[in-house]
Amino acid sequence: MPGTVVMKFGGTSVADAERIKRAAQRIVAKREQGMRVVVVLSARGKTTDELIAWAQEISSSPDPREMDMLLSTGERQSCALAAMAINDLGHRAISLTGSQAGIVTDTSHTKARILEVRADRIRQGLDEGAIVLVAGFQGVSTSHDVTTLGRGGSDTTAVALAAAIDADECEIYTDVAGVFSADPRIVSDARKLPVVSFEEMLEMSASGAGVLQLRSVEYARNHGVRIHCRSSFDDATGTVVVGEEVTVENPLITAVTHSTGEARVTLTGVPDTPGVAGRVTTALADANVNVDMIVQNEPVSEGSRADLSFTVPRDDLLTARAALAAIAEELGMTVRANESMGKVSVVGAGMKTHPGVAAKVFTVLGEAGINIEMISTSPIRISCVVPGEQVPTAVRALHAAFELSGPDTIRPEQPFGEFAS
Amino acid sequence: MPGTVVMKFGGTSVADAERIKRAAQRIVAKREQGMRVVVVLSARGKTTDELIAWAQEISSSPDPREMDMLLSTGERQSCALAAMAINDLGHRAISLTGSQAGIVTDTSHTKARILEVRADRIRQGLDEGAIVLVAGFQGVSTSHDVTTLGRGGSDTTAVALAAAIDADECEIYTDVAGVFSADPRIVSDARKLPVVSFEEMLEMSASGAGVLQLRSVEYARNHGVRIHCRSSFDDATGTVVVGEEVTVENPLITAVTHSTGEARVTLTGVPDTPGVAGRVTTALADANVNVDMIVQNEPVSEGSRADLSFTVPRDDLLTARAALAAIAEELGMTVRANESMGKVSVVGAGMKTHPGVAAKVFTVLGEAGINIEMISTSPIRISCVVPGEQVPTAVRALHAAFELSGPDTIRPEQPFGEFAS
Repeated sequence: MPGTVVMKFGGTSVADAERIKRAAQRIVAKREQGMRVVVVLSARGKTTDELIAWAQEISSSPDPREMDMLLSTGERQSCALAAMAINDLGHRAISLTGSQAGIVTDTSHTKARILEVRADRIRQGLDEGAIVLVAGFQGVSTSHDVTTLGRGGSDTTAVALAAAIDADECEIYTDVAGVFSADPRIVSDARKLPVVSFEEMLEMSASGAGVLQLRSVEYARNHGVRIHCRSSFDDATGTVVVGEEVTVENPLITAVTHSTGEARVTLTGVPDTPGVAGRVTTALADANVNVDMIVQNEPVSEGSRADLSFTVPRDDLLTARAALAAIAEELGMTVRANESMGKVSVVGAGMKTHPGVAAKVFTVLGEAGINIEMISTSPIRISCVVPGEQVPTAVRALHAAFELSGPDTIRPEQPFGEFAS
Repeated sequence: MPGTVVMKFGGTSVADAERIKRAAQRIVAKREQGMRVVVVLSARGKTTDELIAWAQEISSSPDPREMDMLLSTGERQSCALAAMAINDLGHRAISLTGSQAGIVTDTSHTKARILEVRADRIRQGLDEGAIVLVAGFQGVSTSHDVTTLGRGGSDTTAVALAAAIDADECEIYTDVAGVFSADPRIVSDARKLPVVSFEEMLEMSASGAGVLQLRSVEYARNHGVRIHCRSSFDDATGTVVVGEEVTVENPLITAVTHSTGEARVTLTGVPDTPGVAGRVTTALADANVNVDMIVQNEPVSEGSRADLSFTVPRDDLLTARAALAAIAEELGMTVRANESMGKVSVVGAGMKTHPGVAAKVFTVLGEAGINIEMISTSPIRISCVVPGEQVPTAVRALHAAFELSGPDTIRPEQPFGEFAS
């Protein structure tokens, strides 16, 4: 039985005819190694953004079902064009929509979750010797409507297909060479990581590393899918994401991640009665605002009032303020916000057994003159909210202090476009 | 039981956000009259041309199955956007792909024929009070692949749905006010025809009137679907196309049509042996060249050689020459071509019982100084191939001679864009 691979190409890798042809050559080369090949494609370049702009011209709040019908067309176009290019290279390719590929989702339009993959048609195509191209980012709901999986959903499509057809590997091709010990745009000697565990990758994706979508990593962990993040511009090995039992060593710290799009909201004059924090977070959840860190200061004396601070994505700040207006007035609280916050995190599976990491992080940031505003931790991550303009300094200081640079240091000619933070 | 209507909007009627909103208002107005409303939409403006250009950047001969996957996205986008606009007007709209709408076709990619319409999902939507939007020009083949119906196929989609759900009328909205007694760009006092029979409309579509696609008229005739061609810019009644038994009168001549994109091919030195014309037309059919008129001159004496002339669309001339090269060499024939031919036709159901029409056509054209190169007739049509540059003169002369102008004369502010000839 020959090996099976899923290859996923992002939007920049299929942005124009030249790149589509290059991807086609890469796909055909894999097929000619004797592999059974399934390919997942994103929409070309800025297509999704253009479609969203069209919808906004029509409606200020486009119907989600129709938004999915609209957005799902971009990936179908990429697949059809890539299939034409592969056919021209003398191999048979067929493109399938998410629906045709058997990707069944729930009915949550614009952010659907995959429930099941009925991969019969993909298997049939592979058995007939064809290269099977599947439109990423989409599926068909249990009520037979077209759904999309949310931004970056093509990664999840690729991982879900790899699980369904029991592929040896899910290759994610982007315009960066793999997962790095920090954003190479900030840390010039950041190291390409050969292996990262699912747990580390989850923490990294959640704390700002843009190279893999968080849900795709969760899906891969839950189904044991080996991910290989690599460059679509060369043949070098990238970063393999695998289960912790496979990684040979657990470094103390694997990477420093960051994000800059954070806003901090502070409620002052919070009454010292049970349930206030619950009411605040419920109001935010109802408005679909994703709250990250929450810190509540205990009141200094009996009967006095406390402060409650939390961070939200900066784009959600207006929504958050609107959601809190009524409850703030009712309880006599004041709402303040700081829009230019950032977050820096250190992630490492070895941290679990080394209690001194947090202390070192705080010391390093303090010595670099950085004011830590909020802190949150997981067993393998320590995150600090810091002023937005100090994020690069913080990332460099932590990367140096934990000695993360190394032999796999990025080459200067590497493009960084897709390493979104 | 309330009435049911199918409304079809062409590409220029949904070309931008403003036009989509205007179409949405028109659709909602119909719904508010208590009608059950199904809408068929074409791709926006030049979308299909753009998609074809993309494919040609990738491949000189794109795979037809993948071409259909690519091209079918344009209509889906129109439908999703229009559904958003209708939802914003307070009505519920759902968009369906051709496949979701149950349009089952054969497997002839890029020119599929509708085999069956399984309209259950449309009926269910209507029963729930929704306005149902269907992507035109496409279906799903018996092997579950996306297919398209060829240029202008959205008209056929609309008529097929009207037949399947037993609609009272199929309204075709374009940017002309209906079907005219001649192209108003050539004949300034051309008359809007209130009623045309299927048979006349078939002959008119086949001989150059661009307002309705030929196959949609055939489908309407075969299934008894009443078509109403009207302007998307005003509420005036347009042209109703119905069975001959419904039209109250059969005028001698209903309209003058024309086309200018014709090329004439002449084979000289054709041997006077049986089967040559058959071999020539078979070679052309194999190359997918649509031959219109064919004229063979009898040889003057026993054993001498004849001429064989035929017309093809000018765009097919190179293909036609290539297809004939081998047989011409084998049989010692010479191939000549004239690329700038036109055709002018008079169509009228009353012609069947009035034998003098042909004579009048030839006399009128002769008096106008026009050289008739070839002639073909049907019971209700007479067509003459004439030099391309003389087409406007010929159309005006025939329109005047048969006194076709009348009270429904077009208003000068009318736009003519979609009256393609």
